Amino acid sequence: MRERRYSSTSPELLAAALFDVAAAAGLDNTSVREVAKKAGVSIGAVQHHFATKESMFAYALRAVVDRIHRRIATVHEADAEQALVAMLGQLLPLDEDRAREAHVLAAFSVRAATTPSLATIRRQARFAVRTLLSSVLIESGVPDAEARAALLLSCAEGLALAAVGAPEDHPAVYLTRALELQVRMTLWDADADLPPVELAS
Amino acid sequence: MRERRYSSTSPELLAAALFDVAAAAGLDNTSVREVAKKAGVSIGAVQHHFATKESMFAYALRAVVDRIHRRIATVHEADAEQALVAMLGQLLPLDEDRAREAHVLAAFSVRAATTPSLATIRRQARFAVRTLLSSVLIESGVPDAEARAALLLSCAEGLALAAVGAPEDHPAVYLTRALELQVRMTLWDADADLPPVELAS
Repeated sequence: MRERRYSSTSPELLAAALFDVAAAAGLDNTSVREVAKKAGVSIGAVQHHFATKESMFAYALRAVVDRIHRRIATVHEADAEQALVAMLGQLLPLDEDRAREAHVLAAFSVRAATTPSLATIRRQARFAVRTLLSSVLIESGVPDAEARAALLLSCAEGLALAAVGAPEDHPAVYLTRALELQVRMTLWDADADLPPVELAS
Repeated sequence: MRERRYSSTSPELLAAALFDVAAAAGLDNTSVREVAKKAGVSIGAVQHHFATKESMFAYALRAVVDRIHRRIATVHEADAEQALVAMLGQLLPLDEDRAREAHVLAAFSVRAATTPSLATIRRQARFAVRTLLSSVLIESGVPDAEARAALLLSCAEGLALAAVGAPEDHPAVYLTRALELQVRMTLWDADADLPPVELAS
């Protein structure tokens, strides 16, 4: 009988294994069995930490969004344009690690449509990132900072989603240039006199 | 033995059934069995038209992107700002039908990461929409029309992705306002003298 290694199995290890399986095979093909296999533990060991597949997914999603949030929150650039490009760049597949993250994060975003616990985590994570972005925009004096922050985030997530299925069309230099253009469009008209856009959420 | 209704089953009907299943239960839970059940036909009838699940998915994705493309291509607004808002609005969950489309389309976009046939269809569809958008931008005289078209499309897809998991946070009025702001930012600086952004793809 296979030895159970409960003591050497942590939720963090299982979340990392889940991430690796999902990044390689897609979240659709990420089962408790596959996660256990990747982590080198028994199915029982996984079930010891996570009673349901949904709770395992929620834990793994939180680990990913927390990691990305930490990177965004610790960007230190005095210049608003450079700060925003560096912050949003954490969401783009600019290297192998971020390409895997973008794939897994997009998959969780879609699954949020049918899984309330994942929807709550995605919602909170987007709100937290939007707050960091809008702080930079408010300091820059642009109007509609909240709405612009939401657009910056949507652009980055939309670019990442397109790149997930066609990485060869989205090399890092292209993604960075696109992001820079969006940030410049967002900051350009700090002095323009336009009617404010109400944010409904 | 269950009667097989090959003659009354069309690929179009099955694609519509697949769309309904995916919109309600998620693409992850969309099997040949579920599609057959939804269409009211036998599994054999589905397999008569589609040898593999992947070929069924590819057919259904093409049906969705063709439908959206037709709507975008037939927008007739003389004003560039209104035209772009109307075109991109076809990608946003502004009503129940488009909310279902946005969910299914985002799911296919993610699955494109692990399914080359879906990646090809998504890639061609994005290119076709981007061409329609950049035509409007070129006529408006903005610089970097291709890059701006890509950003408009990414913003719309990013907004749609966020809305998929949190529809209550993204009512139609909010999505429309956000889209209008992005379009205005895209068109504002038609006269600005900025260095061009190279498009790598």
